[in-house]
Amino acid sequence: MAETWLPTLKTATPQEGFELATKLARIGVKVTQPSAELRDKLRAAYEQDTAQLIASSHVIATHFQTVAAANNYWRD
Amino acid sequence: MAETWLPTLKTATPQEGFELATKLARIGVKVTQPSAELRDKLRAAYEQDTAQLIASSHVIATHFQTVAAANNYWRD
Amino acid sequence: MAETWLPTLKTATPQEGFELATKLARIGVKVTQPSAELRDKLRAAYEQDTAQLIASSHVIATHFQTVAAANNYWRD
Amino acid sequence: MAETWLPTLKTATPQEGFELATKLARIGVKVTQPSAELRDKLRAAYEQDTAQLIASSHVIATHFQTVAAANNYWRD
Amino acid sequence: MAETWLPTLKTATPQEGFELATKLARIGVKVTQPSAELRDKLRAAYEQDTAQLIASSHVIATHFQTVAAANNYWRD
Amino acid sequence: MAETWLPTLKTATPQEGFELATKLARIGVKVTQPSAELRDKLRAAYEQDTAQLIASSHVIATHFQTVAAANNYWRD
Repeated sequence: MAETWLPTLKTATPQEGFELATKLARIGVKVTQPSAELRDKLRAAYEQDTAQLIASSHVIATHFQTVAAANNYWRD
Repeated sequence: MAETWLPTLKTATPQEGFELATKLARIGVKVTQPSAELRDKLRAAYEQDTAQLIASSHVIATHFQTVAAANNYWRD
Repeated sequence: MAETWLPTLKTATPQEGFELATKLARIGVKVTQPSAELRDKLRAAYEQDTAQLIASSHVIATHFQTVAAANNYWRD
Repeated sequence: MAETWLPTLKTATPQEGFELATKLARIGVKVTQPSAELRDKLRAAYEQDTAQLIASSHVIATHFQTVAAANNYWRD
Repeated sequence: MAETWLPTLKTATPQEGFELATKLARIGVKVTQPSAELRDKLRAAYEQDTAQLIASSHVIATHFQTVAAANNYWRD
Repeated sequence: MAETWLPTLKTATPQEGFELATKLARIGVKVTQPSAELRDKLRAAYEQDTAQLIASSHVIATHFQTVAAANNYWRD
């Protein structure tokens, strides 16, 4: 991953911050399983496994804490 | 998800903050499994699986930390 | 849930804060499984499943972080 | 639990703070499974289940974050 | 591990911070299972287990919170 | 555990902080399963279970947040 994919944690709105958190959660999977082909195959399974959907949502929530703090909760 | 569904993290009361945290937890599932039809089918299963209910409650708790901090814990 | 059940995160003591955290963890389950009858039936099972008891304790711990911060750790 | 079991989050040392975190993790189980007899019976099982031992350690870690912050990390 | 592998939490960019978080998550496995040979063998299994990929992503997210805070969210 | 094993959260470097976090994660297991003999026997099993290795890494990450904050992220 030589290209720049995370230049900043700043986003214009909370919603864009949530989208960034989702991206970070996915990158966290990608660094462990770099094969896009294999991830696509695996995705078919976990998309129908609610325990894993909830676990994914938890990872997003953890990243959203970071992104929200980085943006001072979009208070300004 | 082109529409705006998260304009702000501010809520009038802690209770509304908890409701927002619940919404964020659900959106976190939705971004991974976008099919409403499939989510409804899956919901029937996990609503009776206490381990998954507790895990869902954990995701809400994580988001509630963020929302509460964003609102300065509704101290003002 | 039209009634007010969370007017404030302030509590008089750490112990009352812990009780509030416990309540929030339970509400987090309730919003996903609103049927009291079904929750009572499910409760019989997970009360004897230590993995789920530990997971419940984890959710309480997460909410207790929020409640403790909201009360400035009852330092004042 | 009418008696006072958590008058303060202040402890003299980090080690006592860790002990308090351990106590909070156990109370978190106790509020869901109040029967001491049943908890003792269940304990025999999970004490030999490493996944549950690790999960217990995680709950302690979460509470230790709270207790450490409450004590300003015992820096003073 | 006598050599220095973590001289600082400072990184130039958020992306490098994410890479450091990934490294910390891996070191966390390494301290429990020091055998590189065995870890390689085990890796073959968990790389195709989505639940474990998501759990790994969660650990990275937790470390990323720490690294991001250490860098003041790269705001400066 | 009458002896002092945690006099301070201060460490000279981030790396020593990570080692302290690892120690805290292990103590968290030890307080629940005090038998060293039994822990050694159990260790043989979980050292080859990647899900448990990842879970251990997560506990370390949680403690590392605390230790890093206590050391002001070794910024000084």
